[in-house]
Amino acid sequence: MNMQYDLIVRNVNIYNPFLRTFEKKEAAIRNGIFVHIAARICDSAKAVLDGEGRWMIPGFVDIHMHIESSMSIPVRFSDAVMQHGTTTVVADPHEIANVSGEEGILFFLSQDTDLDIFYGIPSSVPSTNSTLETTGGVIGVVEVEDLLKNNRIRCLGEVMNFQGVVNEPDSLISQIIDTCQKIRPDLPLEGHCPKVTGADLSAFLARGISADHTHQTKESIMEKIPNGMFLEIQEKSMSQEVIDCLIDNNFFEYFCFVTDDVMADRLRIHHLNHLVAKAVSMGMKPEDAIYCATFTPARRMHLEDRGAIVPGRIADFLLLDDLSSFVPVMIYKNGKKIENKETPVPVIPEQFLHTLHCRKAVKEDFIIHCQGTKALVNIMSIEPHSTFTTRKKVLLPVQDGKLDYTGYALLTVFERYGKSNAIVHGLVENAMRNKGAIAASWAHDHHNVLVMGTDEEDMVLAQNKLLEIDGGFVTVENHVVTAICPLEIGGIVSSRPIESLGKDLEEVRSAMQRLGYVHDNEIMSFSTLSLLVSPEIKISDKGLVLTREQSIIPLVEEVQ
Amino acid sequence: MNMQYDLIVRNVNIYNPFLRTFEKKEAAIRNGIFVHIAARICDSAKAVLDGEGRWMIPGFVDIHMHIESSMSIPVRFSDAVMQHGTTTVVADPHEIANVSGEEGILFFLSQDTDLDIFYGIPSSVPSTNSTLETTGGVIGVVEVEDLLKNNRIRCLGEVMNFQGVVNEPDSLISQIIDTCQKIRPDLPLEGHCPKVTGADLSAFLARGISADHTHQTKESIMEKIPNGMFLEIQEKSMSQEVIDCLIDNNFFEYFCFVTDDVMADRLRIHHLNHLVAKAVSMGMKPEDAIYCATFTPARRMHLEDRGAIVPGRIADFLLLDDLSSFVPVMIYKNGKKIENKETPVPVIPEQFLHTLHCRKAVKEDFIIHCQGTKALVNIMSIEPHSTFTTRKKVLLPVQDGKLDYTGYALLTVFERYGKSNAIVHGLVENAMRNKGAIAASWAHDHHNVLVMGTDEEDMVLAQNKLLEIDGGFVTVENHVVTAICPLEIGGIVSSRPIESLGKDLEEVRSAMQRLGYVHDNEIMSFSTLSLLVSPEIKISDKGLVLTREQSIIPLVEEVQ
Repeated sequence: MNMQYDLIVRNVNIYNPFLRTFEKKEAAIRNGIFVHIAARICDSAKAVLDGEGRWMIPGFVDIHMHIESSMSIPVRFSDAVMQHGTTTVVADPHEIANVSGEEGILFFLSQDTDLDIFYGIPSSVPSTNSTLETTGGVIGVVEVEDLLKNNRIRCLGEVMNFQGVVNEPDSLISQIIDTCQKIRPDLPLEGHCPKVTGADLSAFLARGISADHTHQTKESIMEKIPNGMFLEIQEKSMSQEVIDCLIDNNFFEYFCFVTDDVMADRLRIHHLNHLVAKAVSMGMKPEDAIYCATFTPARRMHLEDRGAIVPGRIADFLLLDDLSSFVPVMIYKNGKKIENKETPVPVIPEQFLHTLHCRKAVKEDFIIHCQGTKALVNIMSIEPHSTFTTRKKVLLPVQDGKLDYTGYALLTVFERYGKSNAIVHGLVENAMRNKGAIAASWAHDHHNVLVMGTDEEDMVLAQNKLLEIDGGFVTVENHVVTAICPLEIGGIVSSRPIESLGKDLEEVRSAMQRLGYVHDNEIMSFSTLSLLVSPEIKISDKGLVLTREQSIIPLVEEVQ
Repeated sequence: MNMQYDLIVRNVNIYNPFLRTFEKKEAAIRNGIFVHIAARICDSAKAVLDGEGRWMIPGFVDIHMHIESSMSIPVRFSDAVMQHGTTTVVADPHEIANVSGEEGILFFLSQDTDLDIFYGIPSSVPSTNSTLETTGGVIGVVEVEDLLKNNRIRCLGEVMNFQGVVNEPDSLISQIIDTCQKIRPDLPLEGHCPKVTGADLSAFLARGISADHTHQTKESIMEKIPNGMFLEIQEKSMSQEVIDCLIDNNFFEYFCFVTDDVMADRLRIHHLNHLVAKAVSMGMKPEDAIYCATFTPARRMHLEDRGAIVPGRIADFLLLDDLSSFVPVMIYKNGKKIENKETPVPVIPEQFLHTLHCRKAVKEDFIIHCQGTKALVNIMSIEPHSTFTTRKKVLLPVQDGKLDYTGYALLTVFERYGKSNAIVHGLVENAMRNKGAIAASWAHDHHNVLVMGTDEEDMVLAQNKLLEIDGGFVTVENHVVTAICPLEIGGIVSSRPIESLGKDLEEVRSAMQRLGYVHDNEIMSFSTLSLLVSPEIKISDKGLVLTREQSIIPLVEEVQ
């Protein structure tokens, strides 16, 4: 046997998930794989790394996240996230799929990255159906069959259409689940089950959907885990009572940490390591928190070739100075040190560029014509701490045949895929308090062009500028563009480095704040006014949508 | 939602693996799946089962076993094993593969059974190579590629060829592993690693082989589990110190119970339930022992559709009167009650019948011709408590040109696949003490015809009778056939019920004992004298084989 190793790591405390402890051992690596772990390894090696007594843990594994939330493409995302110690992700590319269909997914799949990126098949593209929203792509049974051939597909992404799953055996989502179960019977089916309980939860589980990454409480955990649901805990679920519940019930085997959506500005600072640090600061033992960010997520996705520092597993590892911050001092992927670098950006195929197929707006586009003297209208009222909206009905004056919406913001949707060229209006409460406009093509999930404003000229300027930069974000104040964040690929992501994207995004955020947009996360609030699966009233190119009823209602209900 | 269920089970204590406790709950089943578990289920159902306060646990899952060890075919095996509460197995069909190649495996796969039978791909058919043994079938890369298309294939079966795995990248086993990893990267690779430790164990693991079902000790467990090996604990490993080690280290997540080889006579009495009962009697909590016979084996094989009584999993369950004997009072498979029955036997294809292609023996076949007056010969000495043999050299007299082996038994191998028609001799110590003969075609792993005897006429009779019944076991005493166990399919299994097979086998066993065969398991001892991967000296149609060296040695070393 050739006992020459590529690398031996000495003088480290190695994390062992099976004993849930650290051990003072040495690790030998060959061909990117851990091949031997022992108290002392005497064989020769091409290189030796002195860990200087540091903690050695596996690279973090993030199994529920969306690369598009970072507004970047896989190569850029990889560069950013590896620096925080995330070495494997399972991404659900449902944003790029909404814009570009399967070709968008294949474009993501085609990119070479240091980060191991596996994918879930987006299960809800479009999020509802073509009666309620126009999208650039659709993921149907044919696309699912094709994608399932690829071994980098590791799950069916967050299934959310409860009615379609439970009560409609012929719905698209039912057909997609059937297809997955037939072709890859052990493919994990991931769910999106917020506030789903009792018989409804059982109905989801009965269909084979066995994980949930949405917001959890102590009560939801005590119902979901004993019913066999694997929980993917994201930061918004990390209340003290949730962490205590997971610890007290020794539930470590049945959950993991995930990031879901991390925007470019946050991604500059941290990633999954932040959740591990937070869990430890909340009282979880580091050995358990690490377990749930490495071993359990890998096992959930049947990625048993990683998530532990034992022979036969991929040599992805981090060296840490402490077990509190979880900021890695050194990062190794496939046994090779990862330096802070810029991976070359691939040539972006033309089909993903210049994708905003709507005409330039004119002032007239932002006038709501109306008869009578007063109009009873449906208003979208924003909740400042969530992405939910509530429906209100208010009586607004009509002057010279135009609706006077003073005190509210106009929200106009331009169908952008060149299919109907529809222009649709809505009115929003608790959005902009000041004069100006915001335009974006980053609009979950249909990603049509949203233009919000309190001044018609500013709205024209914002929309025109957005078309000029091929999508992204634009803010306007006093007839001047105050911030832009170009997302030139499909109008939703950019090939620029995360650092640059993050700076742009911070400027957009500041500009939105100056416009009086009051919310915990202004950008997410704005961009989910179009999310038709989130309560209560949202908007698409088809009109105002009551999301629970999945029905379209008119802006103006009644004219007096 | 149609809330009509097929069955509601009430008045039971249901085992929950996630909480590792029993709960007084009710279970609703529809279409063979658990669809709801709750304290009280009020919806209507076609049927209600009153569990009368019994314990309700998932059906047992046995992930390392060989159906051929029962000497029966899948339909018969299913009938027998379901009565003991085993509802899912992962079988390694390497015996039928040795006899009939991939077609033998497909014959097994084709049988409809109540029992869910998944399969591992036999990784070592032949156990060594065609220089050392002749087999009826070979499982090469082409066969592996074909079998991998079938979703009932759940793993690569016990890989044992250490040299081939570790040091020979072009060996057949290396190619088979490469093929599996390429086509089904998350397919579990099962190992056979007795007494493998240190760098050798790491080398096995480094190749991706991550489970072992062989004999364990406290020391082997403390090395294997922390190195990431999943352990499949069979009865011979269940010493008190092993059970204590598993309990004290809270290793439940990382092992399961398996049966490996259970012959027809044992199978009449119990199956995997016996190991659970034994573990509990040795101090393991029932909640933990059940876990390791249901949940962990299912997870190891990525069979996450079973192994727990929660919504979405297959409704395989048992009702028990107590948590000590684990003899099920009622057995349900896919939500339907299983009665003690005889499943119709399929038509056995002609190719699997009349498969002993060797001629009838004559007295001359059992005479060892020799020159000189004395001969130094290699003897196979049987160990009474294991399947190991040791090599001895003894000086035997030669009379009239014939070797006089008085005090030993002659063991003659007839090549039975019609390829060479070779006849090969060995001599055995500690086998038969009395006059008579034993013949069998159930001879691990090559299954050529073995005839052991102390009387030439008896050997002729035994061999001829064996051919007449198309294989199985025959014993002869005083020129009279004393017992037969026909195994008419491939010479290794039968389509008769387990009950009938078990009785035959008991008679063979008794007859062997009367012939003075002294061993803990006479049949297993006899049938592994041909197993070329088990120490130290074994026999095939090619000659006497030193198993460690994988070399052939002559019976007669030297003539004086």
